[in-house]
Amino acid sequence: MTTLQSFMTQHIPMIEETMYGEVKRLDIPKNLKEAMLYSLEAGGKRVRPLFVLAVLDLFNKTYKTGYTVGAALEMVHTYSLIHDDLPSMDNDDYRRGKLTNHKVFGEALAILAGDALNTLSFGVIARMPELTPQQKVELIHLFSEAAGAEGMVGGQVLDIEGEQKQLTLAELEQVHIHKTGALLRFGIEAGAILADATAEERSHLVDFAYHIGLAFQIKDDILDVEGTTEELGKTAGKDEASDKSTYPALLTLAGAKEKLIEHYEAALQALAQINKDAVVLEELTNYIVKRNK
Amino acid sequence: MTTLQSFMTQHIPMIEETMYGEVKRLDIPKNLKEAMLYSLEAGGKRVRPLFVLAVLDLFNKTYKTGYTVGAALEMVHTYSLIHDDLPSMDNDDYRRGKLTNHKVFGEALAILAGDALNTLSFGVIARMPELTPQQKVELIHLFSEAAGAEGMVGGQVLDIEGEQKQLTLAELEQVHIHKTGALLRFGIEAGAILADATAEERSHLVDFAYHIGLAFQIKDDILDVEGTTEELGKTAGKDEASDKSTYPALLTLAGAKEKLIEHYEAALQALAQINKDAVVLEELTNYIVKRNK
Repeated sequence: MTTLQSFMTQHIPMIEETMYGEVKRLDIPKNLKEAMLYSLEAGGKRVRPLFVLAVLDLFNKTYKTGYTVGAALEMVHTYSLIHDDLPSMDNDDYRRGKLTNHKVFGEALAILAGDALNTLSFGVIARMPELTPQQKVELIHLFSEAAGAEGMVGGQVLDIEGEQKQLTLAELEQVHIHKTGALLRFGIEAGAILADATAEERSHLVDFAYHIGLAFQIKDDILDVEGTTEELGKTAGKDEASDKSTYPALLTLAGAKEKLIEHYEAALQALAQINKDAVVLEELTNYIVKRNK
Repeated sequence: MTTLQSFMTQHIPMIEETMYGEVKRLDIPKNLKEAMLYSLEAGGKRVRPLFVLAVLDLFNKTYKTGYTVGAALEMVHTYSLIHDDLPSMDNDDYRRGKLTNHKVFGEALAILAGDALNTLSFGVIARMPELTPQQKVELIHLFSEAAGAEGMVGGQVLDIEGEQKQLTLAELEQVHIHKTGALLRFGIEAGAILADATAEERSHLVDFAYHIGLAFQIKDDILDVEGTTEELGKTAGKDEASDKSTYPALLTLAGAKEKLIEHYEAALQALAQINKDAVVLEELTNYIVKRNK
């Protein structure tokens, strides 16, 4: 078992337990709780919370705060998928091999379950007993930026607008820096805040986050071309069928792979600037670049 | 001009300016900004922020923090209206006499504009320079509860579920305590936090919030029966046409008016327990009970 595999085996159940626990303890309508839990429990790679924990590991810190912040982060990621899958957005029936939220619970409840997860995530951080009020405020400030109009939601808007035209490489990067990159970056910066990293260490981590965020998306685009629907748990080849601007479409498949390697190497270089044992973050970087789903 | 009228004339423009300013300063896609501003600028009574300010007034405090917290609160109220109006929810074409957000910008952008306002509201509070980190964390914690599954969003789910059956009076109260009451209560408690009210003062204010929240909703139900579409800026008589559980439907119109007076008097009684000049809060209470839109 690699270091990353044992890291995942150790931490993913803790992240998930924390996340489910935050929803299960709520005194709320049964339907709403079921809809929220349905999408949280639908699996996924838990990459964003893993980054929080991998940064804590880099600084040799305990993991507990990372479970909670990671759970809040995964809630926001999950709400964004619920809303993205809606008929008026991507209109997807399946996600991770399971019916999408609105196919099971109806559109109204899917929208509200997403809204509830979004809102809950901020409360989860505000209630953390281990942090100082200053740390919580800094986390919530960054989280709101990363998740909102200036981050993920803005990226989603750019993505929708981009569907109607051919994007340049710079425009495509803007989509992904916001849509995927912002939440990944928040996970990495949150880890740095929880670990009391120095300003210099944090700036190397932000640099790392930039490259790994783009690498993540380029890999997703490549998988859409090369992967199978069965492996991906979602329809493969959808990008090409919908004439979507992607890295392979703009750069050819070989060009996209080259770009992926560039960002992969730049990410590892940024990490190397921090003189610490970064084995988990390095293996997580490898995993993102080499995964087949 | 009554005290309340001059209070509104003084403060509503400041609340609105603060709210618009928070969105205008964002570096985000043009469409998204327009969609967010469209609904914020669509007017409304600004009752929730006015409560924040009226509580500050009760304690003779300066108003500046109330503008910001009130703006965040009105953003959440506005996002909830955008999502409520969607075709899969209430399917409304008009709100406050203007086309609803999705009729102008399309469903996808309306959903995302709502998401962005929800997320932004927490960042707005986290960034307030005048407050201690402790105050911000307490506000965000309460705000998340009031706006989320345990509050407004949960109330919306109860409301949707209630459409398919005849509710009891107790069930109807639960809908409104969550759907309308939770955010009003947050506004009133936020005012108490900003004003450094004592625990006892705050508990009288929470009691006040309970009664004024229900009074607000009962009045809405009565207006739906007695008001005209022109006055209301939305379709009158919609509740009866859709066979919805309302106070007039459960108690008769006369019974609903009696219930309204009960809560009105209980609200004023709670206020009287705080030995301060509550003229603005009293007039705001009168306004809610006697308004014709």
